[in-house]
Amino acid sequence: MDKKTINIALAGFGTVGTGLAKIIRENKSWIERRTGKRLVIKKILVRDLTKVRSFVPDPDARFTSNMDDLLMDKGIDIVVELMGGIEEAFTLIDSSLRSGKHVVTANKALLAEKGNELFALASEKKLGLYYEASVAGGIPIVQTLKDSLAGNKIKSITGILNGTANFILSEMTSKGLDFSTALNAAQENGYAEADPTLDIEGIDAAHKLTILIRLAHGADYPLGILPIQGISRVNAKDISLAGEFGYVLKLIAQVREKSEHLQAGIFPALLPCDHILAKVDGPFNSILLEGNAVGPIMLYGQGAGDLPTGSAVLSDIMSLAKDNSAIDNTGFKENILPKAQIVEPELAVYRHYFRMSALDKPGVLSAVSGVMGEHNISIAQAVQKPGPEGKNVPIVFLTHRAQLKSVYSALKVIDKFDFITAPTVHYRIL
Amino acid sequence: MDKKTINIALAGFGTVGTGLAKIIRENKSWIERRTGKRLVIKKILVRDLTKVRSFVPDPDARFTSNMDDLLMDKGIDIVVELMGGIEEAFTLIDSSLRSGKHVVTANKALLAEKGNELFALASEKKLGLYYEASVAGGIPIVQTLKDSLAGNKIKSITGILNGTANFILSEMTSKGLDFSTALNAAQENGYAEADPTLDIEGIDAAHKLTILIRLAHGADYPLGILPIQGISRVNAKDISLAGEFGYVLKLIAQVREKSEHLQAGIFPALLPCDHILAKVDGPFNSILLEGNAVGPIMLYGQGAGDLPTGSAVLSDIMSLAKDNSAIDNTGFKENILPKAQIVEPELAVYRHYFRMSALDKPGVLSAVSGVMGEHNISIAQAVQKPGPEGKNVPIVFLTHRAQLKSVYSALKVIDKFDFITAPTVHYRIL
Repeated sequence: MDKKTINIALAGFGTVGTGLAKIIRENKSWIERRTGKRLVIKKILVRDLTKVRSFVPDPDARFTSNMDDLLMDKGIDIVVELMGGIEEAFTLIDSSLRSGKHVVTANKALLAEKGNELFALASEKKLGLYYEASVAGGIPIVQTLKDSLAGNKIKSITGILNGTANFILSEMTSKGLDFSTALNAAQENGYAEADPTLDIEGIDAAHKLTILIRLAHGADYPLGILPIQGISRVNAKDISLAGEFGYVLKLIAQVREKSEHLQAGIFPALLPCDHILAKVDGPFNSILLEGNAVGPIMLYGQGAGDLPTGSAVLSDIMSLAKDNSAIDNTGFKENILPKAQIVEPELAVYRHYFRMSALDKPGVLSAVSGVMGEHNISIAQAVQKPGPEGKNVPIVFLTHRAQLKSVYSALKVIDKFDFITAPTVHYRIL
Repeated sequence: MDKKTINIALAGFGTVGTGLAKIIRENKSWIERRTGKRLVIKKILVRDLTKVRSFVPDPDARFTSNMDDLLMDKGIDIVVELMGGIEEAFTLIDSSLRSGKHVVTANKALLAEKGNELFALASEKKLGLYYEASVAGGIPIVQTLKDSLAGNKIKSITGILNGTANFILSEMTSKGLDFSTALNAAQENGYAEADPTLDIEGIDAAHKLTILIRLAHGADYPLGILPIQGISRVNAKDISLAGEFGYVLKLIAQVREKSEHLQAGIFPALLPCDHILAKVDGPFNSILLEGNAVGPIMLYGQGAGDLPTGSAVLSDIMSLAKDNSAIDNTGFKENILPKAQIVEPELAVYRHYFRMSALDKPGVLSAVSGVMGEHNISIAQAVQKPGPEGKNVPIVFLTHRAQLKSVYSALKVIDKFDFITAPTVHYRIL
């Protein structure tokens, strides 16, 4: 923008909004050295005007509860949407763009659901709709895909994109906790919300993955058909058994490209302990990419929090603030990205982990391994844990590469055996 | 640039130039989808016109050995300098900018030595002088510092920036090789040049660090006063002893900021095995940053090679090719960056590793630890390795935090004891 003072309106003044305002104040002269611009938070849209605020960015910043105060103000250059939710946020972004303002947002759910529509509008208006903070907090994955790796065809993305789920699994792994105790710990530490559904059921990671797929592949993978499996049914027993085999359980977001077709999903998976993502613990996020030129690249950092997320929002604001900044929202010239060409999820090939609960009696191993053989599942390792004869024992199988489809068919047969006492637990191995 | 075809001249057609040309051909339609532009390699400057080339990007690309063929050609938009070296490369870049052409370079040595001058010229001409490939190959560290983390004050950068040195240390660690055998292995695998001085003496890493300091701190740290220590004198014995204590030896490039003053240097150091950089093996590079907003961020990838480095060069070309691309070479508004304010290197505080070679006789440990105490060096761990009485034995000390200055003074005293049979080996611990 060819002006010295950039006026910003914040919509939402929670954790991230406060963090952003703090950085803008703290790094004020630094930001001016970088951009030649003064960033001024002119208006702040909040739900409750009477709430006492521990931090106010500037005595001149005006709080308002009326969205029109932002939209009608011709002096505002950039609207920063940090309200969350879908409908109100959509209205704000849509109206901001229509009234000629650039938008920066951290709202992954909204972009995953209505990104197409909003990007088309932004492009029509030649305005920025930037969203670095929407995926993996402070990690600059959006710009990396949009710019730094733009010349690459991305062969795969494998990410730990949800800090809450990763914190819970890390606690379960390091302390041997069960899921609900670890969830409580996450809530007490401020890493999980009162209603943790979006995080633990993989939905938040799915929102982020659809955004990454747009950036990496220039294609729209509808959220409604993305296979999503969360961690709420993860049993501490499998984490401990996996550990004995040298694996660690992580909630993985993955997309792989094969002959222009995409395989994608959110699922808990076992990673070998020396896998580069295996050491990503607690609330951290990490993304491993494979480009056809750059090879493997990994980015690591805090996936949430006031200052890390604020840092990402600020980078978008500073990009827009540049003189003659080239607006590039999606990383592609098309206004509407085509639908992704999708491989049927059950055709995906992985290695697998099974834990069967079986009565310890003759013929069990032979029957089970027979069914796997019939389904072209080749066993790499099998361990029957010792237990009292005739009683329930766990049998763990690690397999070579096999299609999910074969796995599901085999398990359907196996779980019908009368000596199988509980549904077999199955995880993919990366 | 507001035209549909971007004409490129390559200066130098070795590994990286060939890699770049391959990616541009391979990802042609993808690049057009991203940018709306067609990238054409119009001219290629080479030293030897008669050399048979295994790969030619385009039948229309013209090889020349005359620099003026590039400079005089008004149709060329971007000159890509991949010749290496200082003088000729300087002439090319200087003349290209003067004749109105954008420049993309991978030449870290040139930027470290003459960056100020060239950036000032580029800024005067309002032209791009981009250099993503100059540091850490395919890892997008330049853009990350220039844009993504631009709102942060960077508190520290700790990097493994030289793949050759890292490959050699990895070989020494995993196979117990001595330095020269590992260097030979690196040369045989194409990871080290016939004259490996720049890589093994830390000079290449120093070039890269000065570029990172410019980007992160907006300051010029003269290469001539940057403390540089390489790995050519690393003894396999210390790698093995460090391993026993749970540490791994890496060649580290580091800058730390304290009250607007910088502490920087290149040195081999011990990293705890669970340090995030400890697992960076072989020819890989990795950079750990700490920003005052984003917290810790780590980037990892291939630091060299035709396609990874080509990927970085291509990202610069694509950035410049954008319509109305905002030119930003240094990440700061100033044309000339100020000299860095520098902390005297000996004031830096670290933990330390010492290996003394001492005759096994009474009073040794007491004398040595007495000297350390007098110099305010507090011992965290001490191990005297068993050996025949009266003969030479290694004594290893790990210390708490102490100033380098104290360490150097103490070692000067200790190494004069008559029971000390060889100069004490000293490494910092991160």
